[in-house]
Amino acid sequence: MDITFRSDFTTDLVDQMGDDDSVLRSMLVSTLKDGQVADMTDSAKRGRINFLMKGRHGTPFEHNALTFRSEAPIFVYREWHRHRIGVSINEQSGRYTEFLPFFYVPPINRPLVQKGKPGAYIYVEGDASQYAWLMQDMEYNAKVQWASYQERLENDIALEVARMSLGVNIYSSMYWTCNARSMMSFLSLRTREEAKLSPHPTDDNCMVVNPDGGAMFPSKPMWEIEACARAMEQTFATAFPLTYEAFVEHGRVSP
Amino acid sequence: MDITFRSDFTTDLVDQMGDDDSVLRSMLVSTLKDGQVADMTDSAKRGRINFLMKGRHGTPFEHNALTFRSEAPIFVYREWHRHRIGVSINEQSGRYTEFLPFFYVPPINRPLVQKGKPGAYIYVEGDASQYAWLMQDMEYNAKVQWASYQERLENDIALEVARMSLGVNIYSSMYWTCNARSMMSFLSLRTREEAKLSPHPTDDNCMVVNPDGGAMFPSKPMWEIEACARAMEQTFATAFPLTYEAFVEHGRVSP
Amino acid sequence: MDITFRSDFTTDLVDQMGDDDSVLRSMLVSTLKDGQVADMTDSAKRGRINFLMKGRHGTPFEHNALTFRSEAPIFVYREWHRHRIGVSINEQSGRYTEFLPFFYVPPINRPLVQKGKPGAYIYVEGDASQYAWLMQDMEYNAKVQWASYQERLENDIALEVARMSLGVNIYSSMYWTCNARSMMSFLSLRTREEAKLSPHPTDDNCMVVNPDGGAMFPSKPMWEIEACARAMEQTFATAFPLTYEAFVEHGRVSP
Amino acid sequence: MDITFRSDFTTDLVDQMGDDDSVLRSMLVSTLKDGQVADMTDSAKRGRINFLMKGRHGTPFEHNALTFRSEAPIFVYREWHRHRIGVSINEQSGRYTEFLPFFYVPPINRPLVQKGKPGAYIYVEGDASQYAWLMQDMEYNAKVQWASYQERLENDIALEVARMSLGVNIYSSMYWTCNARSMMSFLSLRTREEAKLSPHPTDDNCMVVNPDGGAMFPSKPMWEIEACARAMEQTFATAFPLTYEAFVEHGRVSP
Repeated sequence: MDITFRSDFTTDLVDQMGDDDSVLRSMLVSTLKDGQVADMTDSAKRGRINFLMKGRHGTPFEHNALTFRSEAPIFVYREWHRHRIGVSINEQSGRYTEFLPFFYVPPINRPLVQKGKPGAYIYVEGDASQYAWLMQDMEYNAKVQWASYQERLENDIALEVARMSLGVNIYSSMYWTCNARSMMSFLSLRTREEAKLSPHPTDDNCMVVNPDGGAMFPSKPMWEIEACARAMEQTFATAFPLTYEAFVEHGRVSP
Repeated sequence: MDITFRSDFTTDLVDQMGDDDSVLRSMLVSTLKDGQVADMTDSAKRGRINFLMKGRHGTPFEHNALTFRSEAPIFVYREWHRHRIGVSINEQSGRYTEFLPFFYVPPINRPLVQKGKPGAYIYVEGDASQYAWLMQDMEYNAKVQWASYQERLENDIALEVARMSLGVNIYSSMYWTCNARSMMSFLSLRTREEAKLSPHPTDDNCMVVNPDGGAMFPSKPMWEIEACARAMEQTFATAFPLTYEAFVEHGRVSP
Repeated sequence: MDITFRSDFTTDLVDQMGDDDSVLRSMLVSTLKDGQVADMTDSAKRGRINFLMKGRHGTPFEHNALTFRSEAPIFVYREWHRHRIGVSINEQSGRYTEFLPFFYVPPINRPLVQKGKPGAYIYVEGDASQYAWLMQDMEYNAKVQWASYQERLENDIALEVARMSLGVNIYSSMYWTCNARSMMSFLSLRTREEAKLSPHPTDDNCMVVNPDGGAMFPSKPMWEIEACARAMEQTFATAFPLTYEAFVEHGRVSP
Repeated sequence: MDITFRSDFTTDLVDQMGDDDSVLRSMLVSTLKDGQVADMTDSAKRGRINFLMKGRHGTPFEHNALTFRSEAPIFVYREWHRHRIGVSINEQSGRYTEFLPFFYVPPINRPLVQKGKPGAYIYVEGDASQYAWLMQDMEYNAKVQWASYQERLENDIALEVARMSLGVNIYSSMYWTCNARSMMSFLSLRTREEAKLSPHPTDDNCMVVNPDGGAMFPSKPMWEIEACARAMEQTFATAFPLTYEAFVEHGRVSP
């Protein structure tokens, strides 16, 4: 098979349990009012979910589930798999099956250059020649790696050994299951937003509130994992609209 | 409200995601054959799930969810809540709502007497007079407790203080979400089965296999939590028939 | 044995691994500078730990451990055990050993009366007669319960059945192991502090900063579990002084 | 810096809390005998720990901690990081620091050829020419990758982009904290042992017991992660001798 150079990620929703009402039912068992959710107005529902989010009452957001099937390069999964709580992972095995010849290359809009210090990098566009050269160099590396991989397999080298020189930009596939709470934890860490609060220029006893939203705890995710997170954020927003609205309003803090 | 003495437990299935096919899909992404599940025969599915169970490959059993609403006494929940992994809990709050006057009493078939040493108790029936006296004594305690609880609330004592003398046999309500893997962990610990393997009487190099099933690692659960577990086991068996069959066949070991 | 009425809680440090330097070492492996921690100034250490805390980089706070032995009533443990992540629990068993005749009663400074709505209660002192009556009533309940418990055991009723009428204010004992991260999660939820931020009275685009500290996400813990949390907070502050200082400064948000 | 080809792994013990006595103390709080551990004989201790292991009573094995600093290639960490429970991870960052030019190559005793079907591979030695060619090919790939990496960095490409073509055999560094329970889970999955039980050749109602030990649930780990696991197994055996002995005796089942 020929090498395909890809810059896309897939995060297809495979299965779903629950919605905003599930959140409310598990919340309201605390006062034995879980049977009343069906009769609540949207406004009452919104109020309750905002109360949970504002106060970081997290457990009611766990009684639901979303399963995604995703395709992404290994260097993205390396970060993704560091989420341990409230998530389940099954991934394509480099020991039991041959990789497909899919290699990631950055799309043209992916910032290539970092400025600043570790922990506070700013990423900016590269220039056209940088990008062109990088593409060429990545394609060259992929071709060398893939040719070696194929040749090793032909020489009867075990899959798990043959793959050792494949780059971290080779694609893999994964089933990932989370719940609304672990999804919000993922989104809070893997999306980049302006700060919701910033120091007041003249008054030490005040913080300026960003009226357009923003994150209480801004994160600095890698571009590629943010692309995956943003796609899943859309799915999440559709599946749990009131929960998502409250998440955004309260500064994208995982409850 | 008058006191109700109850000996029942409820474990109603509220929500469900996934089935045996979900297990197979997340398993088969390892060899990129997850798209073939729809075309597999039952026999092929059974074989794959048996392979997972026998080898204790646990993660494919996590991409699904079951939510239960249960009612049980506090001393049962005290054990139930010790399960931490792959489970979510929301419970009726003694701080935010008044308890209902439901007190647990053992049913007539609940063994009342323990024999043997801690860690190896055997439970046997009490005699009729023991049971009758115990019922009377439990009802007396419940009445004293409930009267105090009501009087404290009338005297403007906070809910969370008023409840301090209520017995651990008062009922509470809970939403509990698990997946097939955490359910099997719960069942393996909270149901009592004969040993699947026992020492051979004459041959030290052999173990006798119990042909009627049994547990590789027999547990000694409390009668009441086993009643809850057995009810959920039925629900689980219906929702994941091949998984459940493999669980039983392979000695009720959580994968 | 005679009944003892107690109002205290014990949270004795049994074992400890790690300190602020452990946090720094595991943080600095990210840039392969973990070998330099021994040579860092206190100021440099403080700066690094503040960076972690402010940005909610949580994992470096996990490579350490604290084990406590505690004694507290069951209604406190009921809340305590709801913490599932990064904690380990072993507790005295009501099935395998006889309870000691220790019953909790609120001390004189424990607020007895709640005002307001569920989720927003304010607790205020009771009056002297309320307190006196409550003490009397709690002692009465404890005596009835303990007499029944003893009589049931004498009548050969199993421990796990005999205890069913014991109140949730009976004491139990526990080993609890956490790490600095799960400790901070516990403290953020189980201590009550003023809000660090509150709405500006006239300017919607500002938040007022509480100069005396406070919590970004104020919690409303039960008085008794806060007493336990505050005692462990002292232990934690001693064991991880820079981490604790950063935790307080940044609004008691668990990283 | 010149490329170094390595075939070793490091798993240095950095920090430790607890020992077999910690296991016993947390176990014995169940019967309020935790204060008696200091006076127990080794034989009594062994008996208790065997009881825990045999019955899979897991929680007493959690009140302790081991921190390791390890160096291993990324394809090993990809498996290692799939352990989510009772473990903490901090790893060298490819976004914040430059990789060191350390590439893994299989040592001469590493089986190179797989036989059989996925899920049941057997690995056998390659022949000398296979090995020689593979070494050459891996060195070639590493040189191409490292030259590209260096050139990209010189061309001002961000670290996180420059590294995208590096092979999964490049080394990384990690702090990893576990406890005795999560360590045994790791060992049970990441070491290969003969089966402790196998079907009796003629008697369906019996299983043959392997007198030399073996695993109740044999695993098929990758050679490289087993090398890491075996090194940590030695550390664990020294730190928790009775626990380790019971683990081995009872078929290397994680309790």
